[in-house]
Amino acid sequence: MLYEEITKCVKQAGGMMKNASAAETDIYNKEGFSNFVTEYDKKVQDFLVQEMKKLIPEAAFLAEENGVQQSMGEGYCFIIDPIDGTTNFIFDYKNSCVSLGLAKNKEMVFAAVYNPYTEELYTAEKGKGAFKNGKKIASTSKGLVDSIAAFGCARYNSDDTDRIFDFAKSLYLNSLGVRNGGSSAIDLCRVASGSNGIYTELLLQPWDYAAASLIISEAGGRISQVDGKEITLDKPCSILAGGQLCWKEALELWCRF
Amino acid sequence: MLYEEITKCVKQAGGMMKNASAAETDIYNKEGFSNFVTEYDKKVQDFLVQEMKKLIPEAAFLAEENGVQQSMGEGYCFIIDPIDGTTNFIFDYKNSCVSLGLAKNKEMVFAAVYNPYTEELYTAEKGKGAFKNGKKIASTSKGLVDSIAAFGCARYNSDDTDRIFDFAKSLYLNSLGVRNGGSSAIDLCRVASGSNGIYTELLLQPWDYAAASLIISEAGGRISQVDGKEITLDKPCSILAGGQLCWKEALELWCRF
Repeated sequence: MLYEEITKCVKQAGGMMKNASAAETDIYNKEGFSNFVTEYDKKVQDFLVQEMKKLIPEAAFLAEENGVQQSMGEGYCFIIDPIDGTTNFIFDYKNSCVSLGLAKNKEMVFAAVYNPYTEELYTAEKGKGAFKNGKKIASTSKGLVDSIAAFGCARYNSDDTDRIFDFAKSLYLNSLGVRNGGSSAIDLCRVASGSNGIYTELLLQPWDYAAASLIISEAGGRISQVDGKEITLDKPCSILAGGQLCWKEALELWCRF
Repeated sequence: MLYEEITKCVKQAGGMMKNASAAETDIYNKEGFSNFVTEYDKKVQDFLVQEMKKLIPEAAFLAEENGVQQSMGEGYCFIIDPIDGTTNFIFDYKNSCVSLGLAKNKEMVFAAVYNPYTEELYTAEKGKGAFKNGKKIASTSKGLVDSIAAFGCARYNSDDTDRIFDFAKSLYLNSLGVRNGGSSAIDLCRVASGSNGIYTELLLQPWDYAAASLIISEAGGRISQVDGKEITLDKPCSILAGGQLCWKEALELWCRF
């Protein structure tokens, strides 16, 4: 019931995003180059924080926009990206999503990621599997050679440029083809559903991957840092996520870079 | 009236694609690695050819799937890609489209590209502007630094791998960020609407870009080969398409590769 209520709010938030006229939003620069924030990021986040506080009043929040960056401790913590793929949103790309994860005692227990443009809702509850629009999903059992390989590179993390492009080329030569969609949460959920065999990026924030990490695990996939270490929910890290075989193969590829 | 009828058929074809259950399609390899064809490619193409023959009985056809590759001569010629982004389609990526262009005496006179997943319909008639869902669109007047840069690289064209990835890295360093969506027709239409500042790929077939080329020109953008030469409608070529300033800047970048 609690999770159904949360999911309902995530879908509502996605509706807010979809109905926004991107051209009319008041766009400005945050700290880094191309790291835009729109008024809708804030609106959607404010809506979600307000609704989640009604559902779990004592919960802490980790969220992308300023004002609600608390630390994750014992008890509940919501980890929210109101619009994952903000640059896409600004340019009317129709490839952005709302990402919401719920941790309890620093462990993910529930996740919902919603792409309102394609009406794809990914959900997972710890120990109960992963779902897309209510239908059980599983990460691929195939290898890279039979899969699509996706990568991300945010313009505001300009270190490691050579590394990520060399790796993307290596993925390209070892897979069916590469993709870069501009929304890491969507591409991570596509790992859970098997649309992507692998997704990798050298630096992401917890709100980019927290929700999707549970969805991937519950779909039988694997998510780690690019060196195979566990991901961190309380600070940024690199990401390598895939079906079990793809993950293993891509980890071996990463070892060469 | 003729163009409205054509557009109606393109939307219907998109509906066929969207309603298909990708997992159930009978997938097999065509000539090249990862160059899949599904039964839906054929179904959608057969439907379009049949309907277009009713509308213009004397028209010739250039189309992706076997059986209807006639040469473009005087008079009308339909240039059709039934499913642009077939690999995406197979993997349930929800980023594929139907692309249909109409040439008269070897010149594009009408185009319709439909993405059924986001319900985006791009149309253009020579001399009358370009439209998305009936609303006039224009390519961006901004430069690369303020735009998204997209590139494509099909796995079945494995030459020039270093060249395209080096160029993609160069675009990344000179733009807001790079994308690779896996459907060249969609990414070319995004150039027309300003979502992409630029799109480039080293080898494409006429049915990948014929329709979009008119949509881009009518939206005020520029489309050429990567060395600036005119595109060819009767044989494959490379593609560099963008808003006027982005196109100029990207052409200068390509000169270094």
